[in-house]
Amino acid sequence: MSGTTDQQELPVSSEAPVDPDDVKIGYIGGGSRLWARNLTKELALDETMSGEVVLYDTDHESAQRNEEFGNWVQEREDAVGDWTYRAVESREEALTDADFVILSTQYPPTESMKYDLEIPQEYGIHQAVAITSGPGGIMRAMRTIPVYRDIAAAVREHCPDAWVLNYTNPVTYVTRTLYEEYPDINALGLCHEVFHAQELLAEIVEDQFDVPKPSRDEIEVNVQGVNHFTWVDEASWNGHELLPVVEQYMEKDGVVREYTQSELEDTSHSMHPGFQDNNQVTYELFKRFGVLPAAGDRHLVEFATWFLQEDMPEDLNRWGVLRTPSSYRLARWDDEADTVQQFMDGEKEFDLSETGEVITELMEALAGLSDMRTHVNLPNNGQMLDAPEDAVVETNAVVTQNNVRPIVSGSLPRPVQTQVTQQINNQETIIEAAFDGYDVDYAFQGFLNDPQVKTLQTETARDLFAEMCNALQPLLDDWNLGESETLNESPKFDLE
Amino acid sequence: MSGTTDQQELPVSSEAPVDPDDVKIGYIGGGSRLWARNLTKELALDETMSGEVVLYDTDHESAQRNEEFGNWVQEREDAVGDWTYRAVESREEALTDADFVILSTQYPPTESMKYDLEIPQEYGIHQAVAITSGPGGIMRAMRTIPVYRDIAAAVREHCPDAWVLNYTNPVTYVTRTLYEEYPDINALGLCHEVFHAQELLAEIVEDQFDVPKPSRDEIEVNVQGVNHFTWVDEASWNGHELLPVVEQYMEKDGVVREYTQSELEDTSHSMHPGFQDNNQVTYELFKRFGVLPAAGDRHLVEFATWFLQEDMPEDLNRWGVLRTPSSYRLARWDDEADTVQQFMDGEKEFDLSETGEVITELMEALAGLSDMRTHVNLPNNGQMLDAPEDAVVETNAVVTQNNVRPIVSGSLPRPVQTQVTQQINNQETIIEAAFDGYDVDYAFQGFLNDPQVKTLQTETARDLFAEMCNALQPLLDDWNLGESETLNESPKFDLE
Amino acid sequence: MSGTTDQQELPVSSEAPVDPDDVKIGYIGGGSRLWARNLTKELALDETMSGEVVLYDTDHESAQRNEEFGNWVQEREDAVGDWTYRAVESREEALTDADFVILSTQYPPTESMKYDLEIPQEYGIHQAVAITSGPGGIMRAMRTIPVYRDIAAAVREHCPDAWVLNYTNPVTYVTRTLYEEYPDINALGLCHEVFHAQELLAEIVEDQFDVPKPSRDEIEVNVQGVNHFTWVDEASWNGHELLPVVEQYMEKDGVVREYTQSELEDTSHSMHPGFQDNNQVTYELFKRFGVLPAAGDRHLVEFATWFLQEDMPEDLNRWGVLRTPSSYRLARWDDEADTVQQFMDGEKEFDLSETGEVITELMEALAGLSDMRTHVNLPNNGQMLDAPEDAVVETNAVVTQNNVRPIVSGSLPRPVQTQVTQQINNQETIIEAAFDGYDVDYAFQGFLNDPQVKTLQTETARDLFAEMCNALQPLLDDWNLGESETLNESPKFDLE
Amino acid sequence: MSGTTDQQELPVSSEAPVDPDDVKIGYIGGGSRLWARNLTKELALDETMSGEVVLYDTDHESAQRNEEFGNWVQEREDAVGDWTYRAVESREEALTDADFVILSTQYPPTESMKYDLEIPQEYGIHQAVAITSGPGGIMRAMRTIPVYRDIAAAVREHCPDAWVLNYTNPVTYVTRTLYEEYPDINALGLCHEVFHAQELLAEIVEDQFDVPKPSRDEIEVNVQGVNHFTWVDEASWNGHELLPVVEQYMEKDGVVREYTQSELEDTSHSMHPGFQDNNQVTYELFKRFGVLPAAGDRHLVEFATWFLQEDMPEDLNRWGVLRTPSSYRLARWDDEADTVQQFMDGEKEFDLSETGEVITELMEALAGLSDMRTHVNLPNNGQMLDAPEDAVVETNAVVTQNNVRPIVSGSLPRPVQTQVTQQINNQETIIEAAFDGYDVDYAFQGFLNDPQVKTLQTETARDLFAEMCNALQPLLDDWNLGESETLNESPKFDLE
Repeated sequence: MSGTTDQQELPVSSEAPVDPDDVKIGYIGGGSRLWARNLTKELALDETMSGEVVLYDTDHESAQRNEEFGNWVQEREDAVGDWTYRAVESREEALTDADFVILSTQYPPTESMKYDLEIPQEYGIHQAVAITSGPGGIMRAMRTIPVYRDIAAAVREHCPDAWVLNYTNPVTYVTRTLYEEYPDINALGLCHEVFHAQELLAEIVEDQFDVPKPSRDEIEVNVQGVNHFTWVDEASWNGHELLPVVEQYMEKDGVVREYTQSELEDTSHSMHPGFQDNNQVTYELFKRFGVLPAAGDRHLVEFATWFLQEDMPEDLNRWGVLRTPSSYRLARWDDEADTVQQFMDGEKEFDLSETGEVITELMEALAGLSDMRTHVNLPNNGQMLDAPEDAVVETNAVVTQNNVRPIVSGSLPRPVQTQVTQQINNQETIIEAAFDGYDVDYAFQGFLNDPQVKTLQTETARDLFAEMCNALQPLLDDWNLGESETLNESPKFDLE
Repeated sequence: MSGTTDQQELPVSSEAPVDPDDVKIGYIGGGSRLWARNLTKELALDETMSGEVVLYDTDHESAQRNEEFGNWVQEREDAVGDWTYRAVESREEALTDADFVILSTQYPPTESMKYDLEIPQEYGIHQAVAITSGPGGIMRAMRTIPVYRDIAAAVREHCPDAWVLNYTNPVTYVTRTLYEEYPDINALGLCHEVFHAQELLAEIVEDQFDVPKPSRDEIEVNVQGVNHFTWVDEASWNGHELLPVVEQYMEKDGVVREYTQSELEDTSHSMHPGFQDNNQVTYELFKRFGVLPAAGDRHLVEFATWFLQEDMPEDLNRWGVLRTPSSYRLARWDDEADTVQQFMDGEKEFDLSETGEVITELMEALAGLSDMRTHVNLPNNGQMLDAPEDAVVETNAVVTQNNVRPIVSGSLPRPVQTQVTQQINNQETIIEAAFDGYDVDYAFQGFLNDPQVKTLQTETARDLFAEMCNALQPLLDDWNLGESETLNESPKFDLE
Repeated sequence: MSGTTDQQELPVSSEAPVDPDDVKIGYIGGGSRLWARNLTKELALDETMSGEVVLYDTDHESAQRNEEFGNWVQEREDAVGDWTYRAVESREEALTDADFVILSTQYPPTESMKYDLEIPQEYGIHQAVAITSGPGGIMRAMRTIPVYRDIAAAVREHCPDAWVLNYTNPVTYVTRTLYEEYPDINALGLCHEVFHAQELLAEIVEDQFDVPKPSRDEIEVNVQGVNHFTWVDEASWNGHELLPVVEQYMEKDGVVREYTQSELEDTSHSMHPGFQDNNQVTYELFKRFGVLPAAGDRHLVEFATWFLQEDMPEDLNRWGVLRTPSSYRLARWDDEADTVQQFMDGEKEFDLSETGEVITELMEALAGLSDMRTHVNLPNNGQMLDAPEDAVVETNAVVTQNNVRPIVSGSLPRPVQTQVTQQINNQETIIEAAFDGYDVDYAFQGFLNDPQVKTLQTETARDLFAEMCNALQPLLDDWNLGESETLNESPKFDLE
Repeated sequence: MSGTTDQQELPVSSEAPVDPDDVKIGYIGGGSRLWARNLTKELALDETMSGEVVLYDTDHESAQRNEEFGNWVQEREDAVGDWTYRAVESREEALTDADFVILSTQYPPTESMKYDLEIPQEYGIHQAVAITSGPGGIMRAMRTIPVYRDIAAAVREHCPDAWVLNYTNPVTYVTRTLYEEYPDINALGLCHEVFHAQELLAEIVEDQFDVPKPSRDEIEVNVQGVNHFTWVDEASWNGHELLPVVEQYMEKDGVVREYTQSELEDTSHSMHPGFQDNNQVTYELFKRFGVLPAAGDRHLVEFATWFLQEDMPEDLNRWGVLRTPSSYRLARWDDEADTVQQFMDGEKEFDLSETGEVITELMEALAGLSDMRTHVNLPNNGQMLDAPEDAVVETNAVVTQNNVRPIVSGSLPRPVQTQVTQQINNQETIIEAAFDGYDVDYAFQGFLNDPQVKTLQTETARDLFAEMCNALQPLLDDWNLGESETLNESPKFDLE
């Protein structure tokens, strides 16, 4: 038994219960495109809560557009909820007295994502998304940690008992940072990738049991792992175990198959092909390890790095995965802004329908209107037996009024736990580097240990790290780049 | 990270789902008085399931009386469920193809309880119930473990995927034995003592919030500990934290008070005064340790042994606790048998109403008819952070179709965890003694470490142990008493 | 794997090596009677080191007497070492540039020990020594912790790399405090009780192997536990395992026997009978648990509290243990002062011979003159597998130049580990209470859990605690007694 | 605290002490070339022990040659020890009554090593030695585990208390197997790679302190890790900390430098260039991680796989490492046999001098003639805080009569521990696969997780695995290759 003094607490709010008729949501990153739009829809369709959404963003103009859009939606007849949107110029105003704080910032600017993807590529590292792992994911974490330390401190000051719902990537790093800075915070790291596995299983149930496709809620899954690298070791529908059914399904013609690059790049689909999920990586990992990964293939390959090896990008395409080009991301970003305007201008038809997100269900459960089980990212308090205490892990949890408690997920098979443990250790290294004086050289040790980076010689890895730090200098000013031996040793770094 | 090969698994059944219209319940201890009557009532009132209850008992006559009684109840008009009762003479017949196995044996005979209570009393140890801890609890465990090893082996053979619902005391020892013998068993240790805390909290809510008394289900509690020594560190009603409310309530006149022996022995109450719960031990422990114990006072004092010290029984009575006399138990045992007969003979009015047990809700949840959260006793897989892995602990769990998963309960304050850990270590010692060749001398080491026994000199403790083993010889024949150095050294032991 | 950031480090000094010809010893508690005399003898007999002993004591007069005495001894012909003694009035002066710091304070005054022993006795708790456990031990810990936090801070300031050798009781609490306050300290908790077990084993070897009694160094023992409650699970002499030999020896006539009070009080022996060790508790514990305790019987009974139960003091005397009367302690204290003076005045003959302490061997090893294995008290870094990390445990260690590393001791049998764990948890509770704002009410929770205190009702325990705190108020001024609910509730407490 | 029932015990022999004048050494693999020659030399030079060496080998002829050679050496005048050599045809004869068992088999035949190195090379994996990690190391482990399970069983039967000294690679796997099969075995995994670090440090001391090169015994190091991937986090000479001195030394011209392939292939050195150690990998890892690796560079690169990446073999050569060609190994093997014959025939001069091995010191210590500290491979009982219990780790230990106890090594920096943990988890996976029915598909999961293999796509890795299993079929007959889904799926596998 160890002392519990410094332990990160399970989230439970000691405040008076949330009044569902007078909810204040403080939205940090309130200029967000996709996320704010989804929230607006979900709130408009919710009959049980009313209140105010206060939008704060460093890009105030975007927040104002979302204010306008939110209020525009509320005026529609099919909007059953009663909500007001307000953009503010002070973060404090958004946070003070908030019942819920939503974190969904697009900071730092999307151009940085370009560097995340493109610089490693010059070194032969072909990341698929560069959001949670790999050189791009680590750089993103390094930029994001200082921002969220600051947010955690502001929550402690202005709304210490609020429920903080984080949707910002990398979710693990952000959630870990919030708790490390403010151990009593009531924060949840949220992500919809696990729903992906439930959807896939629902399709398989439809196919194999010859029934109408069940809703994803009918698919019970036990999940465990770290965000974007979570695994299902138990799944059932209607009392039937599903993992053996997946095995059967995989034997069916055409389910497990190879893809070609040209097939993938065919843009006649509605969705950008980079976001199409063909599940071949999922099937292959299930076949090799006996448990089912629960994230999109393009995320999985960043952790299960076998798929990023050999002839790239063909050998990745063969699994049905197309790398997201960074140019597409930038374009999409601008598109989204336009889209909202087009809706309001009547140029594009706006469809007020559910988005698949569970955010209103979650707020309802926390407000005491119902109970809920869903997967969340939280510091480990036993829910994942073989993960280190306090590491942020993703498992199921029970959400009740003012309270979230993880459900025990048990143990993964050792070969899978090994992969998860390695990622956790690298994440913890970066967190330690940040909280121990923003030690760049120590962060580089975590970078070196990333499985994607392990395909380089140490000095090449150093140059990659230096080149990325160099390009991203303005976003890394909490890190004392100038004093780093690693950086100064590299020809790729030139302190501005 | 340690290997998981030998770990006791979380219960999940791989069988086909239970068919709610054709349920088979195998009842081991089917001659049980109180428990079988409660089950009969609950099933008769349940609209969602139908099937057969197969009763097996070493006392076949009692099983036959319960068969007769069960079928008699089913014939009543107000019995909505459709169930058949059948007493059988072979355990195999009860188990084969069972969906649920209920364990509620009164073996060994109640006379042994007399020894459990009375012999220690001669040595100055005044147990209150002698069921789960103390010299009587340990003796009971020693008698019970071999019986349940045998039952676990029979389950493995005849119905390996059945849900085994254990109500037999000592619940921790029995559940631990089932899993140690058959690690893949789907067994739950069940007990209603935690409901006691919920009822108390409901009464306090009624008093302090001036509302009608809520049902116990509306009182959310986080529980953790070992059976009969479980603690609530978080309680809420309607989003209001209740532990501070309990503190307020305790300041009210007459809530915290002293009792006299004569007041307690006043038998004008309907319930035997030994079963009346006055909550003074609960209040005192809450006051000292800041978390609320969740079991009846008479159970708590067996673990929190301060209350059994000094002038007995006055100093125990002062807390509102009256020791159950063993004579009462025997009388009650016979009464119960008579009662059932009187019901059927129409001599006593039978009231078909709910019993407060959750057994049908539990079976419904496991059959997929609904979800449920309740407290259960299960091997520790992380649900109790500071308890040893595999020890059986009591926490909340989520029950869904074919599946039970504990909810993470977190950490108790160190001074409380210390007391729980000590009990767990003693329990594990007795279990090790049993599974490592029924080693009597090693079991005595656990006996010596019991906090009640620690009030004796080592040689006096040896004599107490020897005298109890001597009296209970016929029930301890799996233990090689004759080879025990401890026993042979004592004048109180004389091998028959 | 957990992060190691806050972990208490293994002691290793990063300073330049100690120069054996110019050693500075800073002696805190330099007015100490027995300990300073022993040090003086050992240094005088040591040929390998020379230097200065700087004596600091709040009782400056005593320090001056020891200065005088030390220099007087050095003038003798048979004094081979070259050492100077100097009493100083500032602690800083004693510490600055010290290579070694010896901690052996008699603070707080011996009168307090009277309360430690006598007040509990009024409540029926008959402690034997009241130094490390029981109500007196805990009170002593509460008085001592603030003093040693202050000393640890001074070491950090004035001689951060010095080797700190602590001989002050309670050794576990003091050592734990030093590391908690200053995690990088190079401190060792030292105690000679384990030598007792080696001496006993040497006598048994002499008897059973019919050889001259070996020196204690020839008896290899593996020890583990907490100070004064340490156990030997492996002992050998010359390659022969000794534990089975102890069993044989115990069967010999007269070895295991009973004592009477009058026999014990016979003062014709040279040593006060309270300090005579008859090993009957040692034998009984070995018989019951199969491992050999390694401390004097009068210490053991404070942890293994069976021996303090039933008819006192007869039932304790029966084991050959006589409680040290507090009057004797005070008398002895004055005697010792006189003794030193008598030596110098020639009234009493001074014999310059070895004392059995290993302090010079230890300093030689740390100075690089030799290697050494001995038992030490250190934070747990793995040396005791089943003890919590950072708890201070007593095991063997290897001492080399500027370095001390514990040797892995493995696991105790569960029933013994249970007893040790309970003590550790109580110790950690008191430490947490002290470091978390000197929380008196939390400390009382640790007091309640002490096995000696468990023989009282909770309110009686409260009164005992209050009465002791009341008597010792001047020594507890770091603890905010006035704000304690526990104390204010008791009629025995009256804040001055 | 967890139960200790199944734990692997620390080695301690309960037998009568070894009689140094009548030692029996059973040598399994007694036809070994290099190792037997070294043993013969060391024994001939040892004055303190005498006895018999009984040589057993499946290649009886080789054992006979070593018998002849051993007795030939004993006849020399400068042979001070008194030893007889005897080759036997039954393993039982070698083991029965042995005091020491030496394990140093060259089974399986060296041709298999060719496959270990050459097949992976076709897949772009350029191992340096393929002994302990990487595809070749894992294959070697898979072949070796069954052989050593059998040896462990034979030791249990014929000489259960003998000291088993294992020198066979892969040392971790072999030692782990011995303890898993027979938990009470007294086995030590031994390897001289750590001496390499001590030698290097001695050279640096000579250079930096301007003193004659100290002997390696004067260099104190704290080591921890797994065999061939062990790290020094603390080193000292004469009380001076050495790690900062290494940093200084590395700044000296020419110490840290690049090598070319042609420079390395210059065979004018006495030693084959593949065995020349240029320490550049050691320096680079020290620079990156702040702790010093303690194995030869060619071993380190198999674990720290950055060095095996990019343009091979140039990018490996740049660090001064030349891969051992398998042809050289085979040639050397035959050479060694010839050499011994040439010595006896007088064709080559035999020099009876110390070999640098510590085997006689170790046997002397175990026989009680002296104490010793050295590094050993043993199941983790706390000596390596962050490694899983029971995994075999390499740390220092104290060797005394009949007893070996590891010294607590503490914690490695997280980024280094991460690398070690990953290796341990892969090793444990292979061990589990072997002990859980020789499960080939599960072993493949460990193979997939090897950092060298992670440079391949999963299906390529499968083919590599299949091709290696195919080539080595006769040596893998305990593994049920025919039932493996992984193998049967691959075109590279064709069951004979």
